[in-house]
Amino acid sequence: MSASGDNEVRLYLLPLGMTVRGRRDENILSVLVREKVSLAGACGGRGSCGKCRLLILEGSTGPPTTAEKELLSGEDLRRGTRLACQALVKGDLKIYIPASSLIREQRLLVEGVWEAPPFEPPVKVVRARGAASSTGGPPRSDLSLITASGGEAVGAEAMRTDLEGLKEVSLGLRSGGSEVHAVFRDGELLGTVRPGAGALGVAVDLGTTKVALFAHELSSGEAVSSCGIPNPQAPYGEDVITRLQHVLEDRERGNDLARLVREGMNEALSGMLAAAGYSTRDVFEVVLVGNTAMHHLFLGLPVEGLARSPYMPVTHLPLEVKARDLGLSLHPAAMVYLPPPVAGYVGSDHLAAICATRLKEREGPCLLLDIGTNTEVSLQVEGRIRCCSCASGPAFEGMGISQGMRAAEGAVEGVEVDAAGRLEVRVIGEAPPAGICGSGILSALAALLKSGALEDSGRLRPGHPGVSEKDGEAACWLVPPGKGGRGGVAVTQSDIREIQKAKGAVRAGVEALLAEAGIPHTEVKEVLLAGAFGSYLDPMDILSIAMLPPFPLEIIRQVGNAAGAGARSMLLSGDFRRRAEELAGDLDYLELSAYPPLARLFAASMYLTEEAVARAMSRFKV
Amino acid sequence: MSASGDNEVRLYLLPLGMTVRGRRDENILSVLVREKVSLAGACGGRGSCGKCRLLILEGSTGPPTTAEKELLSGEDLRRGTRLACQALVKGDLKIYIPASSLIREQRLLVEGVWEAPPFEPPVKVVRARGAASSTGGPPRSDLSLITASGGEAVGAEAMRTDLEGLKEVSLGLRSGGSEVHAVFRDGELLGTVRPGAGALGVAVDLGTTKVALFAHELSSGEAVSSCGIPNPQAPYGEDVITRLQHVLEDRERGNDLARLVREGMNEALSGMLAAAGYSTRDVFEVVLVGNTAMHHLFLGLPVEGLARSPYMPVTHLPLEVKARDLGLSLHPAAMVYLPPPVAGYVGSDHLAAICATRLKEREGPCLLLDIGTNTEVSLQVEGRIRCCSCASGPAFEGMGISQGMRAAEGAVEGVEVDAAGRLEVRVIGEAPPAGICGSGILSALAALLKSGALEDSGRLRPGHPGVSEKDGEAACWLVPPGKGGRGGVAVTQSDIREIQKAKGAVRAGVEALLAEAGIPHTEVKEVLLAGAFGSYLDPMDILSIAMLPPFPLEIIRQVGNAAGAGARSMLLSGDFRRRAEELAGDLDYLELSAYPPLARLFAASMYLTEEAVARAMSRFKV
Repeated sequence: MSASGDNEVRLYLLPLGMTVRGRRDENILSVLVREKVSLAGACGGRGSCGKCRLLILEGSTGPPTTAEKELLSGEDLRRGTRLACQALVKGDLKIYIPASSLIREQRLLVEGVWEAPPFEPPVKVVRARGAASSTGGPPRSDLSLITASGGEAVGAEAMRTDLEGLKEVSLGLRSGGSEVHAVFRDGELLGTVRPGAGALGVAVDLGTTKVALFAHELSSGEAVSSCGIPNPQAPYGEDVITRLQHVLEDRERGNDLARLVREGMNEALSGMLAAAGYSTRDVFEVVLVGNTAMHHLFLGLPVEGLARSPYMPVTHLPLEVKARDLGLSLHPAAMVYLPPPVAGYVGSDHLAAICATRLKEREGPCLLLDIGTNTEVSLQVEGRIRCCSCASGPAFEGMGISQGMRAAEGAVEGVEVDAAGRLEVRVIGEAPPAGICGSGILSALAALLKSGALEDSGRLRPGHPGVSEKDGEAACWLVPPGKGGRGGVAVTQSDIREIQKAKGAVRAGVEALLAEAGIPHTEVKEVLLAGAFGSYLDPMDILSIAMLPPFPLEIIRQVGNAAGAGARSMLLSGDFRRRAEELAGDLDYLELSAYPPLARLFAASMYLTEEAVARAMSRFKV
Repeated sequence: MSASGDNEVRLYLLPLGMTVRGRRDENILSVLVREKVSLAGACGGRGSCGKCRLLILEGSTGPPTTAEKELLSGEDLRRGTRLACQALVKGDLKIYIPASSLIREQRLLVEGVWEAPPFEPPVKVVRARGAASSTGGPPRSDLSLITASGGEAVGAEAMRTDLEGLKEVSLGLRSGGSEVHAVFRDGELLGTVRPGAGALGVAVDLGTTKVALFAHELSSGEAVSSCGIPNPQAPYGEDVITRLQHVLEDRERGNDLARLVREGMNEALSGMLAAAGYSTRDVFEVVLVGNTAMHHLFLGLPVEGLARSPYMPVTHLPLEVKARDLGLSLHPAAMVYLPPPVAGYVGSDHLAAICATRLKEREGPCLLLDIGTNTEVSLQVEGRIRCCSCASGPAFEGMGISQGMRAAEGAVEGVEVDAAGRLEVRVIGEAPPAGICGSGILSALAALLKSGALEDSGRLRPGHPGVSEKDGEAACWLVPPGKGGRGGVAVTQSDIREIQKAKGAVRAGVEALLAEAGIPHTEVKEVLLAGAFGSYLDPMDILSIAMLPPFPLEIIRQVGNAAGAGARSMLLSGDFRRRAEELAGDLDYLELSAYPPLARLFAASMYLTEEAVARAMSRFKV
């Protein structure tokens, strides 16, 4: 890295992927505060709480302060750990900010990789005047007033009209002879903008668990509002398989589930837009991404194909559906655009993430993982992208874990071992510890390995002082019962097995893609972790438990809700949308359930240390 | 005309526009019977009823027989009138068959001008097999099975899918793994053909009074069935203006009227298709033509623009609407295609008639008239088409006429003067005369002029023996009261004024177009009369009352329901449809209500003889 200017230095922040500017000799915390990167901290920057830890990967800082020497262990200091409020900037820096040092909100906002595409939305607004002001040849119809006004913009030649839109435009032009703002989408007239309002578009990331909605003003591209709601289908199955099974038993239920999620969206949008001074009637387009099962269940498509091998979706093409045909209460002519599903278990959400992160254009080889109940993995090598879906199961979401819970108030979200080998837990919010969330249990496994309570096979070491028992099963108490946290929080041997299976599935998928591409993991230049869970977890933890090949920490970047970002890009750019559609057809999909080496890759990937995984892999490779 | 073969001769039949073959020395009636041209006749060809009159325009026949000399006047014989059952073919002939000599059914079937365009319907059927038989690369979705089967036919690249169609195809492919016949329309997947059935299309000619429906099988183009129903909106106004007024009073009524006609179509189609062994679910496309008011009232579009100058429709573009959005009970993904209206009072029905008659390609100058409550007139000169709409009013349909009635049982449909100057009436069906229909009153005026009872100003000549009185008004009794026909049938002075206004409007429109094109009427090579009324009337009558410029009888052709034929052509040919759309944009529309010379043209056109019209025209032309 080269110094720039006299006193100005640049700080490259990982895993955010941001570069910010600072001045020589100011402390790192003040740079970050100025750049609105919010770190955890309870002491107001006085160096007494020790929460704003950073890892200096490259560049020089001042020597450790007294406060740092007290709060950080010798090994931490040797590895480059510093406190942001103490370390002084001495030149350009490359800094890694552990998840534990970022406040939760900051982690959700992590979107360093996303750049909005050039603004060129398929929905366009054209101003037209009533009959009074027409010039040139006599107008041939109400519609010709509009095309005369904005002909070029909308491609008057090939213009199509939605019947509802046509009515609205005609009434608009005739009521008071005033000006109308006509809304077109890809050359189709949809209607008029409500006086004083704007034309909105909504990007939806329809997850199995959560539905995220983002509204944008389509004349400017500006974000108007966003919100998230639980997927209202959840009562019929927390996971995809249960939900599909529910529908397979009785096809009619497919319509019920579709209605549930559509009504949920109606309600959420209505509230969210009203709060922002808009109406659902102002929405002219929705772009919806989701995994393929959610895509099918939203549309009420048959799901037989998704439930059995070869796990084939009904369509691999993009769909455009009138919102009214889906019972969405938006503008009567509004369209819903659904980008193509890639495969039965690689959905348009992953496609959106691939596009949002510009995976194809990045300097490769580059990996993109969207970790969840199904973990989609894509590997780009020389512009070619292979992808697969790993059945990681719901353990990462806290399900199937004895005290698992969502990442909500009271969840243990991080576990560390102090210098004395004691476990320290980090709990979300102010509530007493009530359970453990996905990132917490990954962190716990890393800590237990470090403390020696856990063997690399995943067995809790009998006789280790940290290992005791819960309900007759070997377990480690992260929060002992009684002491503040009532019943306590423990990780049991079964919990560990569940996480091993989940992380093993992901590792196996990554290994399979690397093997198919014929490159060793050492060639990978970048690893992108997308999705909510990928943003909350601590990359150091997943490396510690060998969930990924031993990548250098600094090539791992957390890119936030890339699927949502991709959906928003599709809303704001027709070109982005077209490129996504093309890309969908070019992806090489690897169906792991039909990939013979998978079983052995999976078995090896269950080990919890890199040495053990490598040993197991080498055994069958030879 | 040149003789062909030794004994074979050709008979060119006007106004049918047909050429048929005959043998030298057979009588004309036997040729026509063989060719299924059914003439009126009560004596079985014995020359005793005198009903099978023809006009020999060119060519030689044998000398008049005794029977002919008895039944035809000396003037008739001089003009070339012969009886079909008596006149012998002596060489190629050009024959004019007056309407009065054709049976009614024959007149409705007159479609000599229509040729079906090359069969190339936008709706296509593609055969696809279930998952079992896929070859090559693994299928990516249910849909890819279909595109693999029929990719080229449907343009798989740009394929779009209707959601309902997609469901149907997926379920079809998975039920028993059998073959499906997928239906595409312009690259959009609509669904599957019901096993054992076919994909149907329906052409609709939506008239103010009558709705005609024609079903075709879209794999072959074959006609399946057709029917006609009264327009169910009629109770809200027999004519367009009343119906528009009804809606203008309360916009909600527009939806009611739209629903009425759509439900009427549902019912008619359901019955008609069931009788032919099909279901409404087999219908994948509807092509609907109609006058612009019917177009708007069918779609529920605002009609404000149609009710006041400049009489502007809401759209001048073609429309494609899902049948389900209109409440039409067809296949759930079926489309309705509506060709563009030309102007407020020139509808897509006239466009369809222009296209069906290939007006643009004919050797011009050529006139096309669709005579009705509004009479649309088009004049083609050197490939350029000017059109206008004449407010001829409902008199031609028998409305506003004291004893006017529809052309139904009991209507006087023709009036002739015998050698002794006595009026003879022709009545539809077996019922006693009950009133007079449009063609009847035109015929009556021609007869009254000939008998001298009517002056060219339109005044019933006072003191003429044929002129008496009815309800205190001057009138001519066509059927005296008592004598067989109870109350009798009369034409009153007011009736004559109504017809004068109607025929004057048509003549004025024709004169306006000729003037705008800068050609005299003598240059017109062909006059096409389209529509039901245009097919029933006797061209000799309309020439006799100077409703048209003095064209030679032989250039007038009655082309039947050209609008319906055009709609059917659009159903069967995408190319035909595209050319119609292009043509709509190229037509020069003359708005007569804004045409300054109209008032004087109209005043002159009210006279009932050519001499009087010409005199009046010349007065203001100088």
